[in-house]
Amino acid sequence: MNIVLLPAEHCQAAPWVIDDPRQLQHIKQHLAAVPGDTLKVGIRAGQRYLTQIVAMSEHRIELQPISSQPPAAKLPITLIVAMPRPKVLRRLIMDSVSLGVEKIVLLHSYRVDKSYWQSPLLLQLDDYVTLGLEQAGDTIAPQIEIFKRFKPFVEDVLPSYVSAERPAFVAHPYAEQTMPFACNHGCTVIIGPEGGFIPYEIELLEKNGVQAVSLGQRILRTETAISYILGRLMSQF
Amino acid sequence: MNIVLLPAEHCQAAPWVIDDPRQLQHIKQHLAAVPGDTLKVGIRAGQRYLTQIVAMSEHRIELQPISSQPPAAKLPITLIVAMPRPKVLRRLIMDSVSLGVEKIVLLHSYRVDKSYWQSPLLLQLDDYVTLGLEQAGDTIAPQIEIFKRFKPFVEDVLPSYVSAERPAFVAHPYAEQTMPFACNHGCTVIIGPEGGFIPYEIELLEKNGVQAVSLGQRILRTETAISYILGRLMSQF
Repeated sequence: MNIVLLPAEHCQAAPWVIDDPRQLQHIKQHLAAVPGDTLKVGIRAGQRYLTQIVAMSEHRIELQPISSQPPAAKLPITLIVAMPRPKVLRRLIMDSVSLGVEKIVLLHSYRVDKSYWQSPLLLQLDDYVTLGLEQAGDTIAPQIEIFKRFKPFVEDVLPSYVSAERPAFVAHPYAEQTMPFACNHGCTVIIGPEGGFIPYEIELLEKNGVQAVSLGQRILRTETAISYILGRLMSQF
Repeated sequence: MNIVLLPAEHCQAAPWVIDDPRQLQHIKQHLAAVPGDTLKVGIRAGQRYLTQIVAMSEHRIELQPISSQPPAAKLPITLIVAMPRPKVLRRLIMDSVSLGVEKIVLLHSYRVDKSYWQSPLLLQLDDYVTLGLEQAGDTIAPQIEIFKRFKPFVEDVLPSYVSAERPAFVAHPYAEQTMPFACNHGCTVIIGPEGGFIPYEIELLEKNGVQAVSLGQRILRTETAISYILGRLMSQF
């Protein structure tokens, strides 16, 4: 937690208040903060602040803002990813958010086990977003969209995410073209499930404006691939 | 597991033999392979093979090699990382190996909890390397070195890892220079612990030929930072 994210209603009048048990525990136990210490705070969808702790009790920390700055810019990336196994979902959302992805789409695909869509962890996406924002020191949640049918998404929705200024790439180990790097424009990045997209899916993506590109011979885990690809594409941002 | 990694002694005479319980379980349950199916196999420190399953029993699978190819090239990266929390260690080693890092150094630093060096997981590094190789489809283990004292390492060992052709970079959020990208040469990359290196450590690294460079305002988890940085630096490889 590199910033404590607060709802705007906790910061409307001085002193500002932290009363979330998870945040209180982190500040007291992990940071071992005491009154007088400074604390980095972000207001959801707002500015980042350096604050000072003016009072602490068991269920409440009170803060005085000292100075402010705007949140870091997002990366101009739309990340479309085949729904991962539930235990991967938390890290994937958290990492994508902390890397600064603008929009995340969770998509069904042939090799996605249908049971993944029943996972109770899908109801906790907002919590994972909060963890990612607090890790990165960001305040602005990305847009998250869920599409449980591959073909209608690719044919009806995806084309609106693709343009000459914002090309779309699907990572595909058998593509001849290699993935570009150091782009000076936004991109849409599409990542398949464990085992990859099936040939029909790759063809449908290509028919709808997506370029299949290779990352070389190594096969990476989904989360590893996402940060590797964003480092590669977004090195000018 | 995108390749089944076998010791050379299992592949000296036909048929080749898989008898490792973890690998047998993966092939039978996850891949649901049957005799006649093909299977990707790598010989440790050797070639990669497409093989055919010629016999299966409870404790043994027999293979016939069909064709071979060399393993993917490593990335010319020496990764020096402050010893992470034990639960992060497994993923960190596995990801670094699957990304193709040539050499990994685990290093002590002021903000590394001394208890991390007592973790029994440190004895399982070889297993994590195997998982990373099997994920990536690689056969060649990286070199792994462990240094439990920061200053002697930085002053006596590190300079031999740094040269004009292989510059060293430490990721440091307060550096003015930003990290380069799309290098056409090898690099040494140094990643601090949770909370970062202390100023004394950054100074000592800089005195010994390391450039402190920033990745922007976002603070990433160690594992996320590693793959993001390698994607950024190594996009020409």
